[in-house]
Amino acid sequence: MKAVRIGICGLGTVGSGTFNVLRDNADVIAARAQAPLVVSVVGARRDNPLCDLSGTRVSRDIFEVAKDPDVDILVELIGGTTVAKELIETAILNGKHVVTANKALIAEFGNEIFALAAKHGVTVRYEAAVAGGIPIIKALREGLAGNRIEWLAGIINGTGNFILSEMHDHGREFSEVLAEAQALGYAEADPTFDVEGIDAAHKLVILASLAFGIPLQFESVYTEGISKLTPQDMDYAEELGYRIKHLGVAVQSDAGIELRVHPTLIPKDRLLANVNGVKNAVLVEGSAVGPTLYYGAGAGAAPTASAVVADLVDLARDFSAGQKNRVPALSFVNKALQDLPIVPMSDVVTPWYLRMEAEDKPGVLSQVARILSEQGISIEALIQKAPAAGAIRVPVIVLTNRAPQGKMDEAVRQIEALDSINSSISCIRVEMLDG
Amino acid sequence: MKAVRIGICGLGTVGSGTFNVLRDNADVIAARAQAPLVVSVVGARRDNPLCDLSGTRVSRDIFEVAKDPDVDILVELIGGTTVAKELIETAILNGKHVVTANKALIAEFGNEIFALAAKHGVTVRYEAAVAGGIPIIKALREGLAGNRIEWLAGIINGTGNFILSEMHDHGREFSEVLAEAQALGYAEADPTFDVEGIDAAHKLVILASLAFGIPLQFESVYTEGISKLTPQDMDYAEELGYRIKHLGVAVQSDAGIELRVHPTLIPKDRLLANVNGVKNAVLVEGSAVGPTLYYGAGAGAAPTASAVVADLVDLARDFSAGQKNRVPALSFVNKALQDLPIVPMSDVVTPWYLRMEAEDKPGVLSQVARILSEQGISIEALIQKAPAAGAIRVPVIVLTNRAPQGKMDEAVRQIEALDSINSSISCIRVEMLDG
Repeated sequence: MKAVRIGICGLGTVGSGTFNVLRDNADVIAARAQAPLVVSVVGARRDNPLCDLSGTRVSRDIFEVAKDPDVDILVELIGGTTVAKELIETAILNGKHVVTANKALIAEFGNEIFALAAKHGVTVRYEAAVAGGIPIIKALREGLAGNRIEWLAGIINGTGNFILSEMHDHGREFSEVLAEAQALGYAEADPTFDVEGIDAAHKLVILASLAFGIPLQFESVYTEGISKLTPQDMDYAEELGYRIKHLGVAVQSDAGIELRVHPTLIPKDRLLANVNGVKNAVLVEGSAVGPTLYYGAGAGAAPTASAVVADLVDLARDFSAGQKNRVPALSFVNKALQDLPIVPMSDVVTPWYLRMEAEDKPGVLSQVARILSEQGISIEALIQKAPAAGAIRVPVIVLTNRAPQGKMDEAVRQIEALDSINSSISCIRVEMLDG
Repeated sequence: MKAVRIGICGLGTVGSGTFNVLRDNADVIAARAQAPLVVSVVGARRDNPLCDLSGTRVSRDIFEVAKDPDVDILVELIGGTTVAKELIETAILNGKHVVTANKALIAEFGNEIFALAAKHGVTVRYEAAVAGGIPIIKALREGLAGNRIEWLAGIINGTGNFILSEMHDHGREFSEVLAEAQALGYAEADPTFDVEGIDAAHKLVILASLAFGIPLQFESVYTEGISKLTPQDMDYAEELGYRIKHLGVAVQSDAGIELRVHPTLIPKDRLLANVNGVKNAVLVEGSAVGPTLYYGAGAGAAPTASAVVADLVDLARDFSAGQKNRVPALSFVNKALQDLPIVPMSDVVTPWYLRMEAEDKPGVLSQVARILSEQGISIEALIQKAPAAGAIRVPVIVLTNRAPQGKMDEAVRQIEALDSINSSISCIRVEMLDG
């Protein structure tokens, strides 16, 4: 069997992980791929002490790897969306297949990269771009190919889930846990990407395209972070029978596609509510199969390498079988992709959790209930706590039935205008996740 | 694009489900498969009112379908291991690819069927044979292809899981829940296949072959059913921090392969412990990815059809790309399959849960502890309940550390010989499932 020749660009966490998995598991990988997978060349600015590069050709110029005649597949693991894009384009123009773990690049430039790849008859694979080692792209693109996907919801940022799990389990404040996550290396020095939901939005866009057959459209995702959540919210949610998770949610309805990343209350007996720490999980509702869930490590050297190598084995199996482009890049053939409308957030309907501080006097709650009712919103559950010693305001927590965000925004504006209520109501969506 | 022509044999639950999914989702399936999937002919002894067969050719002789020149892929959904085997062999000899949901057939005769298919250059797919709509075979064969699989553990029989969930949640007796499951259609009139673990053993054998690269070997599975479990065991387990699930477990160690189906205590915070009702889930530990879990409907018309259609789309994508036999039937290429030794159960090491009835008098527990200790088994936790009114014996529950079954069998034999202990100790394995 002819060896499949790989050029790895980038030797950071995932690059070194991929190099080592290919070496450590070479025997089982070759047995499955029907051919040995050989790293012909590594492109990296510097060596990584985690990799034994003896016997491996190393180039300090990654663009040389993209043109290397001894490379069949270029593995892009340098990250970012500028040089990485240029690198992948160079590889495609030189007839190389590409495997990447770069979620930002696929989410923002995937349409044009896939078009270029199709034009040049090569394949771009990106299993590692979403949820690390969980084979969720393969599940959506192949395993569930007989279904209309109705919705999906995922915990697709491990850093955020670690923070929320710690806040929930130990009653700790967001800022304190964030600092610890940074010290542990789970969170970047600038945590915006993770805690404001941008990273999750990149992944959600990819999942939604695969699920619904729509072009990638990062700019369409509504994104709301977790930095305003408090351990008190976690406690109140628990009291009501819910946990708070930072979810990416994509829904197909008659009105179009919903694409949103936000904190979400989910019933605590759902599996997704019990996915803790840095782990990821994606719940997918298919028209035939019903709900299926995929769980595992969403980041880290070896788990992400697992997904990169799965793509490499897939391509190697394609080569052995003498074929290419077996599976469309976004699951659906290009001409079947539909640019469906994105539902504006004001029209997105969910139940709601509200937390406010109210003066502990008669009539306040009836004013709140009246304002909600005028917007067509009814109250499902209500918790009013005893005032803290010396406090004149008490926490009031309201769980409503399903209402569009537009109506809820108007109700919240009016409630915040009441003298007896504080002027910053905490307002979190609820998803029942029942298929 | 050339249509892919399908012959469906069998029009029971799964057959009619497959027919309907192919019809209802024809547009998205064609868009993903790069070709329309068309049912050329249905082979069934009688029509099924759930299917509108108008416009579809129907044959009362399934063997005609296997020879039909207008069939590219035969879908075997008649079940059983005699006629079904002959049907599949006939199809292969006539150059047809085959998709089947038949776990018993694959588990017992897969080696010979795959060999025949390889000889005739056709592909046999069987995603629906394990865990219904969950794409677990694709995950093991493709999504985790970069990993050495270290172990897997699954809830792979929905009927059994429904019974255990009801016993746990409502304190009901096994026999009572079984009768209800039969009335609901979850359990067969003869429930042996489900409750004694034979169905789970069929599925476990398939998963283990895919995971470890070993030939299918149904005869090697140790199988223990759930009919002796009591709601009291559920309660005691809960008190100790565990739930009881009927698991299929496959482990690769230096000693060989463990293949076993049995009731198992698992820590109640594990996702697998929270998979309830008729749902299935499989937890897989890979050397690179760590633990991943796959959850969903393990049976039913549409979920199983989802898996059948996924296989059909896979084959159609292969045809479009002009290739065949892209993925080896058991994940590993044939010559890499290794007939590794199966570890005898007496050497299988797990922690243990023991429940016995002991006379409520001094010295009894010390005798039990001494016998365990002489076999090298130490006690991790112990519960002794107050005697029921008028009873002279009290329930004693012991959780031990890890011990081989051989040692535990000997200890139990000696404990049961004590005058002060009843002579039928309940003895259940524990798995921590921590990767």
